[in-house]
Amino acid sequence: MDWASTAIPDEVFFIGENHIFGNPSSPHMEGRLAKEALENARARCAKVFSVESERIYFTSGGTEANALVLHSQLMKKGKGRLLYSGIEHASIRENCQRLKKLGLLTGEIEVEKNGSVTERTFAKALEKYPDTRFAAVMGVNNEIGSLIDVKALISFARNKQKAPVHFHCDLVQALGKVPIDVSSWGLDSASFSAHKLGGPRGIGLLYLKKPLEVLYAGGEQERKIRPGTENVQGALALAAILERRANTETVYAEKEKAAKRLNYLLNELKKIKYCAIIPEDRREYDERFSPFILQMRIKGMPAMVMVRALDEAGVAVSTGSACSSSSPERPVLAAMGIDQPSRLEGFRISQGWSTKQDDFDALLSGIEKALSYL
Amino acid sequence: MDWASTAIPDEVFFIGENHIFGNPSSPHMEGRLAKEALENARARCAKVFSVESERIYFTSGGTEANALVLHSQLMKKGKGRLLYSGIEHASIRENCQRLKKLGLLTGEIEVEKNGSVTERTFAKALEKYPDTRFAAVMGVNNEIGSLIDVKALISFARNKQKAPVHFHCDLVQALGKVPIDVSSWGLDSASFSAHKLGGPRGIGLLYLKKPLEVLYAGGEQERKIRPGTENVQGALALAAILERRANTETVYAEKEKAAKRLNYLLNELKKIKYCAIIPEDRREYDERFSPFILQMRIKGMPAMVMVRALDEAGVAVSTGSACSSSSPERPVLAAMGIDQPSRLEGFRISQGWSTKQDDFDALLSGIEKALSYL
Repeated sequence: MDWASTAIPDEVFFIGENHIFGNPSSPHMEGRLAKEALENARARCAKVFSVESERIYFTSGGTEANALVLHSQLMKKGKGRLLYSGIEHASIRENCQRLKKLGLLTGEIEVEKNGSVTERTFAKALEKYPDTRFAAVMGVNNEIGSLIDVKALISFARNKQKAPVHFHCDLVQALGKVPIDVSSWGLDSASFSAHKLGGPRGIGLLYLKKPLEVLYAGGEQERKIRPGTENVQGALALAAILERRANTETVYAEKEKAAKRLNYLLNELKKIKYCAIIPEDRREYDERFSPFILQMRIKGMPAMVMVRALDEAGVAVSTGSACSSSSPERPVLAAMGIDQPSRLEGFRISQGWSTKQDDFDALLSGIEKALSYL
Repeated sequence: MDWASTAIPDEVFFIGENHIFGNPSSPHMEGRLAKEALENARARCAKVFSVESERIYFTSGGTEANALVLHSQLMKKGKGRLLYSGIEHASIRENCQRLKKLGLLTGEIEVEKNGSVTERTFAKALEKYPDTRFAAVMGVNNEIGSLIDVKALISFARNKQKAPVHFHCDLVQALGKVPIDVSSWGLDSASFSAHKLGGPRGIGLLYLKKPLEVLYAGGEQERKIRPGTENVQGALALAAILERRANTETVYAEKEKAAKRLNYLLNELKKIKYCAIIPEDRREYDERFSPFILQMRIKGMPAMVMVRALDEAGVAVSTGSACSSSSPERPVLAAMGIDQPSRLEGFRISQGWSTKQDDFDALLSGIEKALSYL
């Protein structure tokens, strides 16, 4: 394909120049206009989250928002421990592992067999590690869709732990899909990404209850939390997509529609031989899971074979996280106690706002066709 | 202004969805298509720089590219020292200061009175710090336009130092403005940004001669150098703007045109009372400086007053770097040995491809008008 000329219209290339070319940190008119646009975007994002504007920081995405918070732990004095759950995205898990390499104390929060982090497993971790000062538990897991009751975990920690625990939540997969309330949940920080809502790549958001001392330096942008010339266009796009897709009404309505479609799929999958859902006790209309994500397997068929077979049938599914697609490891499934052969069979089905029952029918016939090779 | 509806057409908001919505790390058709687009962008960027594709890593901008390289120093064993010149951008200087706080050894490379880093000052630093393992010297300074002979510094270090020194160069202000040859100069790493060429915000580039172990983890994207879902649209835009504005012919032609315009400005400024160029010995057609940047002052007039007066006249100038605009400090001018009162008078004039003599005439009459207040 001729990417140079066909992929993007010229006016998209040079959005910075054609629209808001000022630097929000410049004192002149163009700068002030860009600043106004940036703060407009921030205020609109804040309104969707029902928080104050100054708690919103724009980043280049969810991965960076997670890294900003984790790396800020390097700047803290003292020896407190960083906990992260067994189902965290690589941008939490692997950054914690790097910090461990640099001498910080870390510990893992066990997960239940169904892929959830509960008061029980959280309590176990806090008991094992009384020196905990930081805990990262995601809201919705990106591979199996498990929904974590973050609010309950936080009140538990606040009641049980003497020392304050900074509670960080990766909400990338939750945004626009399930109800979120960062403020009433009591989160200290949370990460979001625009492209998971259909917005552009390269823009995300960090919610911070209180400012942090970060490692990442280089300018005074974003109140010294995230340096670098501000992506005004991206911020405006994020604000627009949040207003469109993360408002409470839309989230409830889309979640309901997705649940109905998933219910149909789950019922049809029951009829397919060798088919198993991960975790096995996941039911229709199961409030413990986001209806937008389903992990399943065909017993005896490696997931990569299924991904390829479905791809030929025009259906896009994946194994684990795309972020770690070249690795055969499935740390989330391993944390759930799923054995290695079954892990290699697990693949993920995602749906979005535009998914239709037809798409699931294509998926089902693709699976049937692949099964005929067995 | 109604930013929500007027700033950006809807198709720009959702470029990810409308154009290349696949994730380049996904194995299915949509993913492969996105991967093809991403690698096309990388190959085209590499071609502009005359290097191999695998030396190009996409980042969210120049600041992040600088931070990636500096923070990678945390992962190195041993006690080698990090040097940075006195004219570095905050994304080098301040990250070095944070690393110092974390226990790494750092040292500053002095600059000449004209704002340059020369073999003389570099040799002095290397002699003072024989434990140097890393040096950051920028190609073109963003506040005074001084052009550094990076190639000469590198060959000097290679000949003099026994232990290898990683040489990093911030080329954000050099790209598209002065000739660059990362490979023949012998650079180990270099940083670039799209928006300085008129491309979109949120996309930049890191050149790496050899892969590094980075601090920033979270996914296998960009061969594990820069995690996070790839900004394919941004990468394509960067490739396009590089092809358009950073090819050798265009760079020479634009530099020549800019030099002529600057020459005109410098001649006119001579006629203005109280006007001084920083540094004072900067001449017309001065090959020691980029013609795109000029630092000057009006004796007795604080720069902020001038910035405001010119803004009212419709001319956008700035003091130091926009990245540090809220700080009254001028570390670059201080490093040049300029006294505090004069530092507070210094302001920066930048020109680009679209600048015309008319713009400089407007600037000149704006300065004259401001002078009438004195």
